Amino acid sequence: MMKKVAVLGSTGSIGTQTLDVISRESDRYEVAGLAAGSNVELLLEQAEAFRPKLVSVATKELAGRIRDRLPSGTRIVFGEEGLNEVAAGAGADFVVCALVGSLGIRSTLAAIDAGAAIGLANKETLVTAGHLVMARAEEKGVDLLPVDSEHSALFQCLNGEPRSALKRLILTASGGSFRDKTRDQLRGVTVEDALKHPNWSMGAKVTIDSATMANKGLEVIEAHWLFGVPYDRIDVVIHPESIVHSMVEFEDTSVMAQLGNPDMRVPIQYALTYPERRPSPASPLDLLARGALHFRPMDLERYPALRLAFAAGRAGGTAPAVFNAANEVAVARFLRGDIPFLAIETMIEEVLNLHTPKASPDLETILETDRWARQKAESLRP
Amino acid sequence: MMKKVAVLGSTGSIGTQTLDVISRESDRYEVAGLAAGSNVELLLEQAEAFRPKLVSVATKELAGRIRDRLPSGTRIVFGEEGLNEVAAGAGADFVVCALVGSLGIRSTLAAIDAGAAIGLANKETLVTAGHLVMARAEEKGVDLLPVDSEHSALFQCLNGEPRSALKRLILTASGGSFRDKTRDQLRGVTVEDALKHPNWSMGAKVTIDSATMANKGLEVIEAHWLFGVPYDRIDVVIHPESIVHSMVEFEDTSVMAQLGNPDMRVPIQYALTYPERRPSPASPLDLLARGALHFRPMDLERYPALRLAFAAGRAGGTAPAVFNAANEVAVARFLRGDIPFLAIETMIEEVLNLHTPKASPDLETILETDRWARQKAESLRP
Repeated sequence: MMKKVAVLGSTGSIGTQTLDVISRESDRYEVAGLAAGSNVELLLEQAEAFRPKLVSVATKELAGRIRDRLPSGTRIVFGEEGLNEVAAGAGADFVVCALVGSLGIRSTLAAIDAGAAIGLANKETLVTAGHLVMARAEEKGVDLLPVDSEHSALFQCLNGEPRSALKRLILTASGGSFRDKTRDQLRGVTVEDALKHPNWSMGAKVTIDSATMANKGLEVIEAHWLFGVPYDRIDVVIHPESIVHSMVEFEDTSVMAQLGNPDMRVPIQYALTYPERRPSPASPLDLLARGALHFRPMDLERYPALRLAFAAGRAGGTAPAVFNAANEVAVARFLRGDIPFLAIETMIEEVLNLHTPKASPDLETILETDRWARQKAESLRP
Repeated sequence: MMKKVAVLGSTGSIGTQTLDVISRESDRYEVAGLAAGSNVELLLEQAEAFRPKLVSVATKELAGRIRDRLPSGTRIVFGEEGLNEVAAGAGADFVVCALVGSLGIRSTLAAIDAGAAIGLANKETLVTAGHLVMARAEEKGVDLLPVDSEHSALFQCLNGEPRSALKRLILTASGGSFRDKTRDQLRGVTVEDALKHPNWSMGAKVTIDSATMANKGLEVIEAHWLFGVPYDRIDVVIHPESIVHSMVEFEDTSVMAQLGNPDMRVPIQYALTYPERRPSPASPLDLLARGALHFRPMDLERYPALRLAFAAGRAGGTAPAVFNAANEVAVARFLRGDIPFLAIETMIEEVLNLHTPKASPDLETILETDRWARQKAESLRP
């Protein structure tokens, strides 16, 4: 049976790789809907190639600009309402949620409400609203399948295992572009230095997050929600090769690990084909060519953003939303040359210190907290 | 519910470790039967501790010698008939088959016929009679659970995965006590040198098999039968640390690995508790203390016994029984100082060359071939 797929954020990195995976087995998938922002030229190409019934763009103006160039069977909608229509109203069995930011939360909830299985690539969804999203997915009996390589690895390690057997999640971290620098050596680093990631080619925000380990912090919070594991049973280790994507330790001391070359198409495809697996365009792992896999302890003094993420996760409620928003603004300010690299971490910490977390926040409270934290982070002096 | 367990080979290495595992959770297990050979003093201790209904020993004479010292509720039987009674007639739900040699095959088949799940630690069973045992287990709807650390690892990697997704089995091998020696350096090695295994403490036969890689050859043939995988999709890599116990590569390029400290109690316990896991007395894996895991290519010129095992496996029929019997005799001759280390391999090859494999042999043909190969291997001059 054809799987009907909607892709939210189809012109981004995860979105285009999702469509790459789908295009290689076009007899197994039907693209029901595509939601993009403002990259309308790429959306037009995608619509031509996959012939979805529904596409959405950010604004009415953008929709008007491309309406006549879409294939005849493709209807266009716009704005948040349009996005939610693609998420919930395109008849998809499976919705890949790959939007960045708070828009991602609402559309993910909309897709869950429509009963679709979710391929989750939007970090904010679980980081800021994990309690809401997990409860909603359980209520609706909907599968939430991780698309991130670390969470996909954990999910694969847990395959066929009773949850009671799980003892500890072990996330791996490459260490990012500044892995071998001390904090002293980080004082003068430039944006250009920071954007060189050793193993994965990613966007600027994610690359900086990987250098500060804020990225790993967000993943820890996501893992907490996705697998229902308390923070004291989530560890992070540095694994420079990025071959072991993460591990699970079980009650009996067995550790299961998922390995592979760094290629996002593997976890994306696994979410799409689960519980099956299909041939992938990724290159097979050659462990013998690698020769060795290394593991080093994580140092929370060296990577304060990870320490702050654990603290925010443990504080719970609105604290993770503050961590996430403050980090986003701080990274943006670093990228535009407004603050030095090390100020990203102090800025997150300052905003967190200014905040009193509210427990079990609803979506409005989360979004309000997000706005508050962004304002604070913008206004702070480095 | 209590699991009723019978242990065939209770006084050997796997047997005693099985009873160690059981003794730690005595509220979960009832020992229904124990089969030993001639180590009657240890059997008496075990009978005292676990109070089985039935025990067996090798001979009538041995049975007579200890009958009066057994606990009142324990009946004693002897010989092959007695062994099969413990395997099939002790009312066990789960039979650990840890006997060495051809006795192991018959008693495993008897336990399968009785409908018990099998924890399989007897190599001969699958190596020489894999086609019979797998067919019988399928016919009776009986679970065959591997107890060997490599096969348990493969089994764990396949947990929850559709068999169609399996691409390749990757067995790891420590390389044994002579890993860093060339073949030239192996000419003069002594029995004492050979018995130093770097990671596992095992019996003499297994330690020599580990140095020649004959052990890994037997495991390859077992894996072929246990997981129904053709030989060209079974690889062996050298992994000196013995931490990754084996791996499975899937269709999508994902590789799942099972890791842990070398401790046989973990795979033994997993077979007993599957699909659950329970706390283990094994020490947890500390990857950070290890720092690195290494992988090196297997060299079939350096390890001809492994090459011969693959060849015997591919030839099929009675060939693996010849490989196994010739190896056993050759190792025994090396251990008693009768032949040099390198003659183990040439002897296996010579006996294989003298043999014309018969396809789909029945048990009698297998046992006859075994006897023939042993005689040949005894009579050959180094």
